[in-house]
Amino acid sequence: MTRLEHKKILITQSDDYMGPAIADLFHAEAARVTARPGLVPFGPDFPNYVEDLQDFDVVIANLAHDPCNGPIETLADDHWKKLFDTMVHPLMALVRHFAPRMADQGHGKIIAITSAAPLKGLPGSAAYCAARGAQNAFIKAVGLEFAAKNVQINAIAQNYVSNPVYYPDELVQSERFQKHLARNVPVRRVARPEEQAEFALFLASDNSDFFVGQIFPFSGGWAINA
Amino acid sequence: MTRLEHKKILITQSDDYMGPAIADLFHAEAARVTARPGLVPFGPDFPNYVEDLQDFDVVIANLAHDPCNGPIETLADDHWKKLFDTMVHPLMALVRHFAPRMADQGHGKIIAITSAAPLKGLPGSAAYCAARGAQNAFIKAVGLEFAAKNVQINAIAQNYVSNPVYYPDELVQSERFQKHLARNVPVRRVARPEEQAEFALFLASDNSDFFVGQIFPFSGGWAINA
Amino acid sequence: MTRLEHKKILITQSDDYMGPAIADLFHAEAARVTARPGLVPFGPDFPNYVEDLQDFDVVIANLAHDPCNGPIETLADDHWKKLFDTMVHPLMALVRHFAPRMADQGHGKIIAITSAAPLKGLPGSAAYCAARGAQNAFIKAVGLEFAAKNVQINAIAQNYVSNPVYYPDELVQSERFQKHLARNVPVRRVARPEEQAEFALFLASDNSDFFVGQIFPFSGGWAINA
Amino acid sequence: MTRLEHKKILITQSDDYMGPAIADLFHAEAARVTARPGLVPFGPDFPNYVEDLQDFDVVIANLAHDPCNGPIETLADDHWKKLFDTMVHPLMALVRHFAPRMADQGHGKIIAITSAAPLKGLPGSAAYCAARGAQNAFIKAVGLEFAAKNVQINAIAQNYVSNPVYYPDELVQSERFQKHLARNVPVRRVARPEEQAEFALFLASDNSDFFVGQIFPFSGGWAINA
Repeated sequence: MTRLEHKKILITQSDDYMGPAIADLFHAEAARVTARPGLVPFGPDFPNYVEDLQDFDVVIANLAHDPCNGPIETLADDHWKKLFDTMVHPLMALVRHFAPRMADQGHGKIIAITSAAPLKGLPGSAAYCAARGAQNAFIKAVGLEFAAKNVQINAIAQNYVSNPVYYPDELVQSERFQKHLARNVPVRRVARPEEQAEFALFLASDNSDFFVGQIFPFSGGWAINA
Repeated sequence: MTRLEHKKILITQSDDYMGPAIADLFHAEAARVTARPGLVPFGPDFPNYVEDLQDFDVVIANLAHDPCNGPIETLADDHWKKLFDTMVHPLMALVRHFAPRMADQGHGKIIAITSAAPLKGLPGSAAYCAARGAQNAFIKAVGLEFAAKNVQINAIAQNYVSNPVYYPDELVQSERFQKHLARNVPVRRVARPEEQAEFALFLASDNSDFFVGQIFPFSGGWAINA
Repeated sequence: MTRLEHKKILITQSDDYMGPAIADLFHAEAARVTARPGLVPFGPDFPNYVEDLQDFDVVIANLAHDPCNGPIETLADDHWKKLFDTMVHPLMALVRHFAPRMADQGHGKIIAITSAAPLKGLPGSAAYCAARGAQNAFIKAVGLEFAAKNVQINAIAQNYVSNPVYYPDELVQSERFQKHLARNVPVRRVARPEEQAEFALFLASDNSDFFVGQIFPFSGGWAINA
Repeated sequence: MTRLEHKKILITQSDDYMGPAIADLFHAEAARVTARPGLVPFGPDFPNYVEDLQDFDVVIANLAHDPCNGPIETLADDHWKKLFDTMVHPLMALVRHFAPRMADQGHGKIIAITSAAPLKGLPGSAAYCAARGAQNAFIKAVGLEFAAKNVQINAIAQNYVSNPVYYPDELVQSERFQKHLARNVPVRRVARPEEQAEFALFLASDNSDFFVGQIFPFSGGWAINA
């Protein structure tokens, strides 16, 4: 039997970050995937975004933006706000919209694809850490809030996973990056996107019902505390 | 000898949260305190805010807002954004402004007064957890970023400390709250504001130079992991 | 296809704790399970214990003992030592024996079944917290030590999972315990042993290669930080 | 006024690790220090150890042993056990003896000097991580157990602090170690023992009553999560 048969699953920003890998695997496992490309809006545009969306068994809150790296003194207000506008505020809107509907239907799962950066603290990426840290803290709180309603909300806090936004092949294959890996990442490689998708699949399946509000580091041993 | 003699110290939003208690103790210890009441602005108004401010040895980034508690489905966009506008974005602006100046002068400390709520995950306070979680993650990253420049940036992640914003006396003395304390807070009491100020003083003193990027839970045993 | 086909898997103390549930599921998934009942010895008896054991793809280091609960002033030296003798020292011996063999054969996984108690700190169970905390800290360190050798060592730090040692059915069904659950465990139930076994299966499978040195809380939201 | 006037303070293994630095500072601050050199015994010898000791306001549980570093496959059973015999079991005995007496007298503090190694996971130091991890987990649990009795039990989980056991001057001054520092420790230096003693003094003072069961990383930004 396929592992996600009949499950209705929404993947946001499906053309970016972990969207393509998760969509591929979930399709292969017979999920009924709604892959919605593009940024998730916040504010008055959000109702339009969800208007023609049905209810789902699982929502993959996949939200990503260029990390705007650099020393904090060079950070522009606009870049800082953009990280919150694309990753943090829409995550709240998605959970506020879907979690109560899942509670009403008696079950559901939301899996946020976030980052391990805030678990460790990454100099030169303070803006990104702040935004991803807001996501992780939010997921922890709403995960507990919906725990008793058979809705499981968790996050995959990843780093060093091959994906077009943060780790394109060109970067990964460079000699400099390989040295960086050898020094910083205990497993000494980046994850294939399919490996991440397999963990997302585990969390999307009925086998993960005892996990709530949890932030799972997925980083080859780089960050192991959540 | 007094413990903060000659130290130039800025306290933001000095009329709220831990501002009054910290200002009182720091004055008594002979610090040269600049207590600046009111919200710290973000964006085009920030330069005005700091325009007549000199350089400081220590900045107490004391930022607070009503936590906008309630089930996530009742949370208004405006309330959510307000938490970020008052607590998260101004913290970035303060650090971006002061930390490089402290690096230039060869020393300095920034102490953010944040919350333990995101460490634990507080159902019904997801917005507050998200905003305070953003602060904690930001402090961790910039704390590491400035570590080698003799600038120490840390946070006091508190809860159950007597203060006019979150724990006014009336609330604390109610029978219901006392029961809540007995059940949830290992030390079974709220901290006096002076106790918190003493820890802030320790972090503001020269004795804390080996701490950087750290989020100190201060919550009577309620949250003990950071 | 079955999910563990051909995998040679050792389960220690297989008659206790999570041994039976994991053995059942792994058998059903076509693993070649060696279920070894009884305590794992330490010291001069350990070589006998492993003498007739082959090499394995996966070792489930399932070690359990009565938690010796009670106020610390009533704790007997013998009980304290017994927890270390049955759970901590044998875990080291198992890892010291099998991990280098796994490194030699080019792959392998060790999954320790530990506890979430030390993540949270459990008054009245300080001895148990100490012993399980030693296990978790050990797994974190050896997990990093073997990370680059394609050997993945992780722990499931569980609580509130139905099992004969800590949560027998009789206890779980009592009114008093149900009230305790409602107050302390966000999902308000204990996990079925099969749920735990499914997570152990995920970690035993080839899909978990990017996780090393990680302590996974598995406790229905009771402890969510590791 | 001196900061520890009239306080009766026991320092164990006072000739090693942080004992000398803490004793010096505490003496200077007018504490009535009982500095007891040598290993703390466990088992039948423990009653002799404490027999002529009075009650104390503060106990500094300073326990150290050579870390027995090396790959796990080379670790001898004896070395492994020695770490537990000298650091873990005596810590339990000290807390079991003193904490209830402190509860009876209505106040008291125990400060364990442990290590940050288990917070991070240190390959090549798995035995040391296990033993120090047991200590940290134990302190967390008994810290919560005595929280309501006005007895505060906490740990300083340090690394990279100058001391004769782990960081003798010769090692610290070597070129190799200085390179290691630059790469691994955000503040790029080891702490002077007096800096650590100042934090121990803060925890020993009446100003720290709101901290219980807490494991304070003290490592120049090397480990910042507890």
